[in-house]
Amino acid sequence: MSNLEHTTRAYAAAMDDADPLAGFRSRFAMFDPDLIYLDGNSLGRLPRGVAGRMQQAVESGWGADLIRGWNNGWWEAPRRIGELIAPLLGAGLGQVIVSDQTSLNLFKLAAAALTLRPGRSRIITDSLNFPSDLYILQGLVRLLGGQHEIVRIGSRDGITPDLKELASAIDERTALVTLSHVTYQSGYLYDMRAMTDLAQRAGALILWDLSHSAGVVPIALDDCGVDLAIGCTYKYLNGGPGAPAFLYVKTTLQPEAQSPIWGWWGEAQPFAFELDYRPAPGVQRFLTGTAPVLSMIALEEGLAPLLEAGIVRIRQKSVALSQYAIELSERRLASLGFSLGSPRDPEQRGSHISLRHRDGYRINRALIEEMHVIPDFREPDNLRLGLAPLYVSFQDVWDAIERLGRVVAERRFEKYPLQRLPVT
Amino acid sequence: MSNLEHTTRAYAAAMDDADPLAGFRSRFAMFDPDLIYLDGNSLGRLPRGVAGRMQQAVESGWGADLIRGWNNGWWEAPRRIGELIAPLLGAGLGQVIVSDQTSLNLFKLAAAALTLRPGRSRIITDSLNFPSDLYILQGLVRLLGGQHEIVRIGSRDGITPDLKELASAIDERTALVTLSHVTYQSGYLYDMRAMTDLAQRAGALILWDLSHSAGVVPIALDDCGVDLAIGCTYKYLNGGPGAPAFLYVKTTLQPEAQSPIWGWWGEAQPFAFELDYRPAPGVQRFLTGTAPVLSMIALEEGLAPLLEAGIVRIRQKSVALSQYAIELSERRLASLGFSLGSPRDPEQRGSHISLRHRDGYRINRALIEEMHVIPDFREPDNLRLGLAPLYVSFQDVWDAIERLGRVVAERRFEKYPLQRLPVT
Repeated sequence: MSNLEHTTRAYAAAMDDADPLAGFRSRFAMFDPDLIYLDGNSLGRLPRGVAGRMQQAVESGWGADLIRGWNNGWWEAPRRIGELIAPLLGAGLGQVIVSDQTSLNLFKLAAAALTLRPGRSRIITDSLNFPSDLYILQGLVRLLGGQHEIVRIGSRDGITPDLKELASAIDERTALVTLSHVTYQSGYLYDMRAMTDLAQRAGALILWDLSHSAGVVPIALDDCGVDLAIGCTYKYLNGGPGAPAFLYVKTTLQPEAQSPIWGWWGEAQPFAFELDYRPAPGVQRFLTGTAPVLSMIALEEGLAPLLEAGIVRIRQKSVALSQYAIELSERRLASLGFSLGSPRDPEQRGSHISLRHRDGYRINRALIEEMHVIPDFREPDNLRLGLAPLYVSFQDVWDAIERLGRVVAERRFEKYPLQRLPVT
Repeated sequence: MSNLEHTTRAYAAAMDDADPLAGFRSRFAMFDPDLIYLDGNSLGRLPRGVAGRMQQAVESGWGADLIRGWNNGWWEAPRRIGELIAPLLGAGLGQVIVSDQTSLNLFKLAAAALTLRPGRSRIITDSLNFPSDLYILQGLVRLLGGQHEIVRIGSRDGITPDLKELASAIDERTALVTLSHVTYQSGYLYDMRAMTDLAQRAGALILWDLSHSAGVVPIALDDCGVDLAIGCTYKYLNGGPGAPAFLYVKTTLQPEAQSPIWGWWGEAQPFAFELDYRPAPGVQRFLTGTAPVLSMIALEEGLAPLLEAGIVRIRQKSVALSQYAIELSERRLASLGFSLGSPRDPEQRGSHISLRHRDGYRINRALIEEMHVIPDFREPDNLRLGLAPLYVSFQDVWDAIERLGRVVAERRFEKYPLQRLPVT
C-alpha cells in the first residue's frame, strides 16, 4: 500500500483488502448497498441477526410464553445484557445494568452522587457535554431546592475543553464531576484516568457519559477507579433506535449509593409486594419499572458482532479510518471552506470527526439528497462523519470526502433552504 | 340462554355464541389454542398484527431508513400513540403521551404536583395501591428532603378502601391524592368522579393510576376534571412485555406543571442544542430521553383490536364475564376454601377477580402445570383471574373454574412447594 498515493481510491481499496475487520460488514443489513452511512455515532446499523431474534421474541416469547416469558429470560435481561456490555467498559461483574434511557440514568446517578457528598455544593461539567446531560443536571439542582451549583467549564475553540480551567475548578466544594468521555460535537476524547484522579483527589465523585465512546474506544472503568458511568446503546453498540441505556456503579460505592427513583425492579423482594421500599443489594437498585423487553432483546442481539470483533481491533480501525478521513479532508476540502472541528491527535479523539463549514447544514442536506451519503449535522456548523469500524470501509471514507468536495465545489448545497429548527 | 342452567358448559357456550366480541379472539395469536389465559391483566396477549409490523419496523425502519427513521414516524411516536390511547381515557387532544414506564411517570407527575402545591405537605394514598407506586412516592419524599408525609389509608377487608377514613384524611394539608383506579389485588374500582371532587374541593390535586382500568373500564378524565393520570400499556392495552407507559396532564395544568426530569425530548427546541433547558410547551415536556422505538411500535400496533372493539362493548363483556366467574366460583368453589377477594358489585370492580385461598400460591402452580390454565397469584392469598374481554370466552371461564375446583378437590396442589420468593 505504501507505494500508492493516499489520495487515490486504489489506496483506499488496498486498505480495505488488508482490513481484518472487513468481513464484519456482511453481518449488517445493507438494504441499499450503495449508501454510505456515516451516522453510526447516532444510530448504529441493523445487525442481520436482529430480525430473526425479534420474530422469535414476539412469537415464541410474547405470543407463546405469554406471562411465562418473565421466567424465560426477560426478568434477568437488565443484568444479563449489562454483563455483556461490561467488558467493553472494562467493568467487572455486578456493576453494569441496562435500564431506561441515558438521561434517566444520569438523573439517578447524579442524584445518588450528590447524596453521597452532602457537604459539597458544586457539580463541575463542561460546555462540550451533551446539552441533554446539562438539562438533566439543571433539573436535578432545581428539584433539590437550588443548594447546588453547576459550574460549566468552557472551551476556547469548541473542540477541546479548557483543561486548566477544569482542573482549577475542581476543589473541596465539588461533589461531582461529570463529563462526556467523547464529546458529541468535536469527538474530543478525555483522558479518563487523569480526570478521574483529579476529581477523586479533591474528594469528588466522577460520572462519565460513555455514549460516544462505548463500543469504539477501549474503556477501563475499574482500572481507572471510576465511580459512576452511563451511556447509550443505540450508537456504536448497535442496539436499535432508542434502545435502553446502561449504567455503571462501582462495587465499593454500591452499598451506600441510593437511587432517587425507588422503582419496584430495584426493590429487594419485588414479588413480596411489601408496602415499604427496601433497596435491592447491588447495582440493580438503580432499576426502575418494567423493562421494554422487545427493545432489550434487539439490543442483546445487536451487540453480537461488536463483541466478536473485539474492542482492540475496533479501535485500531477506528483510528485508521479517522486519520484517513482527516488526511483526505485536509488535502481536498480545506480550500473549500472546511476546517477540522476535531482534535488532530487520535489519542484525543473518538470515532467521529467533525468538519466545520458555515454552510454545514445545507451541505449535509445535499449529501443526503444527492450524493447517497448520510453524515449528520450538529449546530452551529458541525458536519459529523461517524466512522463505525464494523461497517464503514476506507473506500466509503474516500467516496464521502470526494462527494463532499463536489457538493461544495459545484455549489449544490445552495438550492436547499437555510435551516429551520423543528419546534416540538 | 335463559332456559339453560348457568352452571352447565352449554350455557357458557351459548353465551359465547351470542357474544358480539367473539370474533376478536381471532385477532390474537393463539399458539396453543387449548391454553386458557387469564393473565391479560398482567401481560396482554399478542395481537396478530404485531409480528408483521415489527418485522417492518426492524427491516424497513431501522435497517433501511436508518437515521431517517426519525423523520418517518419515530420522533412523533410518543405523541401519536398517546393520542391513540386518549379516547380510551376520555381525554381530549394534547394531554396524553407515551413515555418511560409507569413508575417513572408517577415520579414525574407526583413531583410536578408537589411543586404546584407548595404550602401543602401531605400525599394521600391507600394500602390497596400498587406497592410500586408507594415506593416511588416514598423515594420522592426522601429526595425532597422529607418535608412531605405520605398518609396511607387502610382497608378493613383487603378488598375495598376505607372510604370514610379516606375522605376525612383529605384536607387543607393535602397536596396530592393518588390512587389506583382499579386496585391490583381485589380489582376494586374507585368512583373517579367522587374521589376527584373530594380531592379538588380540598384544594389538592389528584393523580390516578389507570394501569388496571385502561382498555377495559370506560374512563372520563376530562369530564371528571382529573388533574393527572398515569398507566401501563402491557396489560389490557396489549402493548407487549414492558411496553412504554402513558401519562396525562390536564390542559389547564400544563403551563405551570414542570417535570423534575429535564429530558431533551421535553425541551422546547431539542435540535438547537442550547446549553440551558427551556421546557417544551404542553404535555411533551414530560418526555425524557429517546423513546425505545421498537417497543413503541409494537404498542401502537397492539392497540388496534382494542380500538376497533370499542370500550363500551368491552366493558359490557367484562362485566358479564366477571359476574359469571363470581357466580360459578360461589356455586362450585366456596365449599373448597375459596372466598371472593373482589367486590360483588360490578360497578365497583374492574376486569379481574380475586379468589382468596390459603393455598393460593400452590393452587396457581398446579393450574399452570397441570390444568393448562394461567391465572396469576399475588401475595398473600390472591389467585387473580384476569378476564380480558377481547380473547377470554365464557367457556374459558367455565373451564377455569371447573379445573380450579378439581385442583383443590383432588388435592393436586399439595405436591408443589410452599412459595419461596425470588430475591433479586
